Amino acid sequence: MELNVKLNENFGRVAESYLFSDIAKKVKAYSAAHPEKKIIRLGIGDVTLPLAPAVISAMQKATAEMGEKETFRGYAPEYGYAFLREAIRRHYENFGVCLSDDEIYASDGAKCDCGNIVELFGDNEVLIPDPVYPVYLDSNVMSGRRVRLIETGPENGFLPSPDGLDGLDSKGYVIYLCSPNNPTGATFTAEGLKKWVDFARESGSLIIYDSAYEAFIFDDHPRSIFEIEGAKECAVEICSLSKSAGFTGTRCGWTVIPRGISSGGTYLYKMWERRQATKYNGIPYVVQRAAEAALSPEGEAQCRENVKYYLRNAKTIAAMLDEKGIFYTGGSSSPYVWMKCPGGMTSWEFFDFLLDRANVVGTPGAGFGRCGEGYFRLTGFGSAEATAEAVDRISKII
Amino acid sequence: MELNVKLNENFGRVAESYLFSDIAKKVKAYSAAHPEKKIIRLGIGDVTLPLAPAVISAMQKATAEMGEKETFRGYAPEYGYAFLREAIRRHYENFGVCLSDDEIYASDGAKCDCGNIVELFGDNEVLIPDPVYPVYLDSNVMSGRRVRLIETGPENGFLPSPDGLDGLDSKGYVIYLCSPNNPTGATFTAEGLKKWVDFARESGSLIIYDSAYEAFIFDDHPRSIFEIEGAKECAVEICSLSKSAGFTGTRCGWTVIPRGISSGGTYLYKMWERRQATKYNGIPYVVQRAAEAALSPEGEAQCRENVKYYLRNAKTIAAMLDEKGIFYTGGSSSPYVWMKCPGGMTSWEFFDFLLDRANVVGTPGAGFGRCGEGYFRLTGFGSAEATAEAVDRISKII
Repeated sequence: MELNVKLNENFGRVAESYLFSDIAKKVKAYSAAHPEKKIIRLGIGDVTLPLAPAVISAMQKATAEMGEKETFRGYAPEYGYAFLREAIRRHYENFGVCLSDDEIYASDGAKCDCGNIVELFGDNEVLIPDPVYPVYLDSNVMSGRRVRLIETGPENGFLPSPDGLDGLDSKGYVIYLCSPNNPTGATFTAEGLKKWVDFARESGSLIIYDSAYEAFIFDDHPRSIFEIEGAKECAVEICSLSKSAGFTGTRCGWTVIPRGISSGGTYLYKMWERRQATKYNGIPYVVQRAAEAALSPEGEAQCRENVKYYLRNAKTIAAMLDEKGIFYTGGSSSPYVWMKCPGGMTSWEFFDFLLDRANVVGTPGAGFGRCGEGYFRLTGFGSAEATAEAVDRISKII
Repeated sequence: MELNVKLNENFGRVAESYLFSDIAKKVKAYSAAHPEKKIIRLGIGDVTLPLAPAVISAMQKATAEMGEKETFRGYAPEYGYAFLREAIRRHYENFGVCLSDDEIYASDGAKCDCGNIVELFGDNEVLIPDPVYPVYLDSNVMSGRRVRLIETGPENGFLPSPDGLDGLDSKGYVIYLCSPNNPTGATFTAEGLKKWVDFARESGSLIIYDSAYEAFIFDDHPRSIFEIEGAKECAVEICSLSKSAGFTGTRCGWTVIPRGISSGGTYLYKMWERRQATKYNGIPYVVQRAAEAALSPEGEAQCRENVKYYLRNAKTIAAMLDEKGIFYTGGSSSPYVWMKCPGGMTSWEFFDFLLDRANVVGTPGAGFGRCGEGYFRLTGFGSAEATAEAVDRISKII
């Protein structure tokens, strides 16, 4: 029935379906038409290695607790159990960042937090790099926000810069940064990130920093924006166990909101607390125990072996591109390899070409923004065998 | 640091903290000041019995699967695994409601869905009963929506009615209904609910029906709005395993959006799909398996024993009020007993009185709306022993 209620018209301004849903549909259709083909999926950024033994063991124990009256747990604290917030705080200490437990808000993932944090803001101009994870743009457009894209490309290594932005007219921006970047793998140096922090402080802007891939950094690139002096005055950070601990199907992430950040006398952390207390009911107890285990020294060591495995896959892909002389970013500090489509193909042309000719699924760069057109994302999240096989198939046709 | 970004000013229009957070703080303070007192909590609507054996066993099995490469699961389908959507559809068949699996969108709880669904709408007038679960009001106010409260009271058994609303001016409302109602326990008959469905169809309004407590209905009151003819044209239903299966700390709920509901040619289910695909990443696999088990015939039988246990507690409370001649609603078809505060006390006065004199925690009715002032909510979610003890203590002081 046609109702008379008014719907949110901003939904009409985003593409009707989400990038990864589109890809899934295309692959399903191809698969149905060619049931004999063995498709290798290096498309969606989904992990394939099982949860670490320490995580499984903690989850089994927690599940057993939920079955006994004495140890059963009902509603969790809205921002996470103290044991989890403490485990996250300790994780940050690994790379020299000091937080207090109550600045850390646990949740069921970075995607939810990235989408939900939009609710806290008024009518600001929102700066979003291009290309980048589509959730920033879509969630802002769906809320009717004004977005300005910051173009990146091969000339700046796909790293956005505040150069040329007018930061001195007292108009604060909401700025999204993602490092290591999804999809390009481009990773800020401390100097590059410092420029953004300085810009934010000068202009009174807020940085929303997505560090979901920080665990892939094994060198001196910053793993957290809070490694940069002054960041606690102007940045919130959103992180996740999805990629570092294989939690894509288990769901745990967090947002760090430093206490001192305010605007118009209102503290941002208080708004987030109100938002979460009103619209969210916390993470399952069993998942919080699993997350605690993933962040324990034993769990982190196990998870890091998985991360290294994915990095080796990414390097295998990158080595093939080196050999072919094809431009790419990523492939180190990131599970992603962001390659130029060969032969002047568009992103979706190359998607179809790869699917049809090599039975390999990747992600069209255009799905991450206009500047992604002509580029393509491959991931190291497959198995070593499948990745080697995919690289072999691809190298034969490009 | 004070930033220049604009914040969402609507947040200033809701109370600074959430009702249950306030209560928790008060109890914590009292407890710290009187460590020797044994406090009985009949306040927050949280379950206390452990998860059913069928649920635990399914969750253990699923956890083991997550630890093996062959059975590991990454990202879940955004709207729930097919096995879960099917299990929910079968649950509805228990009381004669036919849905198709793809009208059912699984999520991590009714609270999240109630809060998030607000995003789909434009500038409608929103009708919300008073008193009711505060999430409807708060999430609409935080989004700047215009809200009209529908007063209820002892004269109409705390059940809202569309009488007196102008439904013929082609202005659609978004209407929240909750049955069995939280906090009053008031439960619609089929006739009462039919009046709302007819009103919605006449006026082109949308009903958002919260059936989170449907499992407490053991008589012929409707357990779903879709038992009412015409409801599929004008209603969405939000439900949860929190109370029926003890999932408050495990997190699983769902929203049913019939395919045919549209406005201005846009289908509501498509907007919800876009919203969830953009801002949500699904429920943990282990929880989906747990939920499937809770909805299996074996699981439902076990869960229903728990529901009966809570209902017996509610009846124990109600019997005491009967004896004292104090007005109340609920106590059957609901874990809640909604009582008139004795001696003309306000809700918070009675809260303090009960906490101080009986060391019993309840929920002040005023926290659920202006019409809740002078009333008080007690729950059957405690243990039988604690409930009997609380009833004994209360009966001595009122």
